[in-house]
Amino acid sequence: MQPGDANVSGNVHGGRILQMIEEAGMIVSTRHCNVGMTEENNCICGLARVEHTDFLQPMFVGEIAHLHAVATYCSAHSIEVKVDVHAENLFKGEKRLTNQATLWYVPIKEGNIVCNVPPLVYKQPEDEMAGRRRYLKQKTEREQVDTNAPSMTDNWAMSIDVPNRNGEMHTVGNAQSSLIHLVGVQDCGVHGWAMGGVAMKLMDEVAGICAIRHCHTNVVTASMDAVDFHQRINKGSLLHVRGRPIFNSYKSLLIQVIVMVEQSGKNEHGELDVILYCACSAYFTFVSLSSERKTLPIPPLKLHTDDEKARFEEGQQRYKKQKSLRSAM
Amino acid sequence: MQPGDANVSGNVHGGRILQMIEEAGMIVSTRHCNVGMTEENNCICGLARVEHTDFLQPMFVGEIAHLHAVATYCSAHSIEVKVDVHAENLFKGEKRLTNQATLWYVPIKEGNIVCNVPPLVYKQPEDEMAGRRRYLKQKTEREQVDTNAPSMTDNWAMSIDVPNRNGEMHTVGNAQSSLIHLVGVQDCGVHGWAMGGVAMKLMDEVAGICAIRHCHTNVVTASMDAVDFHQRINKGSLLHVRGRPIFNSYKSLLIQVIVMVEQSGKNEHGELDVILYCACSAYFTFVSLSSERKTLPIPPLKLHTDDEKARFEEGQQRYKKQKSLRSAM
Amino acid sequence: MQPGDANVSGNVHGGRILQMIEEAGMIVSTRHCNVGMTEENNCICGLARVEHTDFLQPMFVGEIAHLHAVATYCSAHSIEVKVDVHAENLFKGEKRLTNQATLWYVPIKEGNIVCNVPPLVYKQPEDEMAGRRRYLKQKTEREQVDTNAPSMTDNWAMSIDVPNRNGEMHTVGNAQSSLIHLVGVQDCGVHGWAMGGVAMKLMDEVAGICAIRHCHTNVVTASMDAVDFHQRINKGSLLHVRGRPIFNSYKSLLIQVIVMVEQSGKNEHGELDVILYCACSAYFTFVSLSSERKTLPIPPLKLHTDDEKARFEEGQQRYKKQKSLRSAM
Repeated sequence: MQPGDANVSGNVHGGRILQMIEEAGMIVSTRHCNVGMTEENNCICGLARVEHTDFLQPMFVGEIAHLHAVATYCSAHSIEVKVDVHAENLFKGEKRLTNQATLWYVPIKEGNIVCNVPPLVYKQPEDEMAGRRRYLKQKTEREQVDTNAPSMTDNWAMSIDVPNRNGEMHTVGNAQSSLIHLVGVQDCGVHGWAMGGVAMKLMDEVAGICAIRHCHTNVVTASMDAVDFHQRINKGSLLHVRGRPIFNSYKSLLIQVIVMVEQSGKNEHGELDVILYCACSAYFTFVSLSSERKTLPIPPLKLHTDDEKARFEEGQQRYKKQKSLRSAM
Repeated sequence: MQPGDANVSGNVHGGRILQMIEEAGMIVSTRHCNVGMTEENNCICGLARVEHTDFLQPMFVGEIAHLHAVATYCSAHSIEVKVDVHAENLFKGEKRLTNQATLWYVPIKEGNIVCNVPPLVYKQPEDEMAGRRRYLKQKTEREQVDTNAPSMTDNWAMSIDVPNRNGEMHTVGNAQSSLIHLVGVQDCGVHGWAMGGVAMKLMDEVAGICAIRHCHTNVVTASMDAVDFHQRINKGSLLHVRGRPIFNSYKSLLIQVIVMVEQSGKNEHGELDVILYCACSAYFTFVSLSSERKTLPIPPLKLHTDDEKARFEEGQQRYKKQKSLRSAM
Repeated sequence: MQPGDANVSGNVHGGRILQMIEEAGMIVSTRHCNVGMTEENNCICGLARVEHTDFLQPMFVGEIAHLHAVATYCSAHSIEVKVDVHAENLFKGEKRLTNQATLWYVPIKEGNIVCNVPPLVYKQPEDEMAGRRRYLKQKTEREQVDTNAPSMTDNWAMSIDVPNRNGEMHTVGNAQSSLIHLVGVQDCGVHGWAMGGVAMKLMDEVAGICAIRHCHTNVVTASMDAVDFHQRINKGSLLHVRGRPIFNSYKSLLIQVIVMVEQSGKNEHGELDVILYCACSAYFTFVSLSSERKTLPIPPLKLHTDDEKARFEEGQQRYKKQKSLRSAM
């Protein structure tokens, strides 16, 4: 990992790791779907979903990142890939597991057509059954409505403006951040649309900026909740990536991030118009570190509006659920 | 030039060219100031000002950029560098002048101390006199107040939020854009503060996004007005780069851009606080191109507020002045 | 040179220098081949071979790299380019020769057709004769079989997995490394295939990782043996770059690197299949440096298998031959 991959304290950005994970997943799933195919059936796998991902250990500049990806389940039109990331310290000669991620891909061929996924050979019939259960579970979750999710009538998501920062420290408005990014060729694979990892890297960047603004310390990504990719992001479109803190526990800060895509296109009357849609949204958890890398308490979030209070409530439930899942493991 | 340096139509971003110009200027001025110096007097030149720069010709992906920089005048504490940029098409074997820029640098050594500039040897005494006139001229201009410039009480510059886009096309609010950027190690030279070219690249990026939003075509940078760099940008600080269209002629769009720096530091009471200051501001002129690279008319800017109308007036005067300067050449 | 170009000790990666050398060579050879050509004969020069290259002096972050490339011989279908690299320290005002490289290019036009090279004008007839001798010498060398080269039946080259590291220090398996890289647009020139310098940069990266794993110190590239580029690398293909130490002297470590390309294509039965081929292979010599930049002894390589012993033998002969060539100069 190079200095450009990390923050000024040398911690590799969570977003950079997510980007590598997604690239590895794309390679393995695309390889699986193209074995034995004729040329007209060549396809590329696009990211559909990433399951909840913990950042178990930090990675540092100068370390080698090892990624190991393997296809673990195939439904008719989707493929599950598990990716392990290890950080190797070449000087100490040690290797640490830093991330384990599960991603779902969908193979797409020219003309934007979803392809069939070739069957996977499982070592044991139980592996297929367990995979099928994971498949059905994520399908159910995708269909569940996140009542906390910004709707298309939400001012925060839809307007280009971000509510006022009134100068008061530790409010939602004070940390709330937004960036724009024009999707260029370097963001796209051979297919002409943005790789899922590009969106995740930008989301982690905005979440990190929110966390710095709230904490003013060395903040690092602790986890990313499951995120669904609803729609493709085309080359030349403009991304609005927005983040806001919604909840804090004693040692963690939960940040909601949304990616809105602004794209020129024709509306229903055939006129040139600007189309705005949500490509994906996610929840990131950050922790704050001292210069000796000890976790620091998070300054409590000051809540002003009823919306902020409602989101805090829901964020708290999300936090408790995650905590109970972890302790059950 | 690589695909990542250009927009989707293959035109190299003006900001990328400005960044290369600044890097060449930094090398030549730093080299001049360190000749014969002892180690404790080693210095690095920081960008203080760029004079009005025209983009005479476009540059395309696949062309070779040739930069030629030469020190042309030295005052006691500043150094003027002229940079020529040529684009070489390897196939046609032709080389076209694309840019001519004049930049002013100030040598700074450790402890943030401005150094003396060693004298320059001029071919003829007239060269020194002409240089001195340019030096005094830019000094006068720097001291002039730009009444159009956003002040520290201007909501646009100071607040993180950007006024609402009400959905109406071709208004100021509709094209107004903003990005944030965390200054990382890759943006900084060996000195630990951001290279001037980094700020110029981001400014051109925001101006380009404003222009795309207003025109919805292939837009390219035609010129950048003189820009002064008031204050250094440190590693780890957060940049808010904002742009808004202020005037359009039949074939050009004038965009004002400001770079606000957000940095953690101690306030006058010794408390940790967020400091916000303006690092620089600039005016970019963009033109709109058809797919055959012909200039297209610019959709007229719809003005709503008195401020918008006043800025349009001043933008028009700026445009006329620039036009008369060009025809006088 | 920026921090991202160097290792954590500030030494610029040999691979980064090789990449700049190749880019300079491509520009000069392509320029030579397109002078006076009609548009349908436009061609781009692809790298065919790099002669043995010594890293005479290290280059450091903050220094300016100066590259000077000149065409020195032309055969009917190939062109020899010599590239000098100097590092300039802006503070000390000194410029040191760091590299001298000789590269061979072949001009290729659309449809993958090799073009004729326009004749070169030589200052003296002896220059042409000496060039012809170099041309014939490299041609002979290219045809020689490297008995040490991994064959397509070699498990190391062909399998995607890397044999187990059993934990014992200083064995071949312990240092053996591998990376994968998806060839993206940023790796390709205007022609759509990867620049030769991209492969060399990755090869140096893997060789460096092997060397660190063996030595656990600050290692730097001392030389790269002649390397032939057998086949083009297309955009979208996947590179497997693998390295293994094969020999060590008291103060140097010889590392063999191979670039395998994995690409979708049709097999002999006309079915879409994954094709695996070797794009190039090379030998890198690394030295180990103390924190005072003194060369350190290399831990002896522990050999287990007969293959490892045979490769060590051949590596030793390669080392002795190189040493006698150097002392003969």
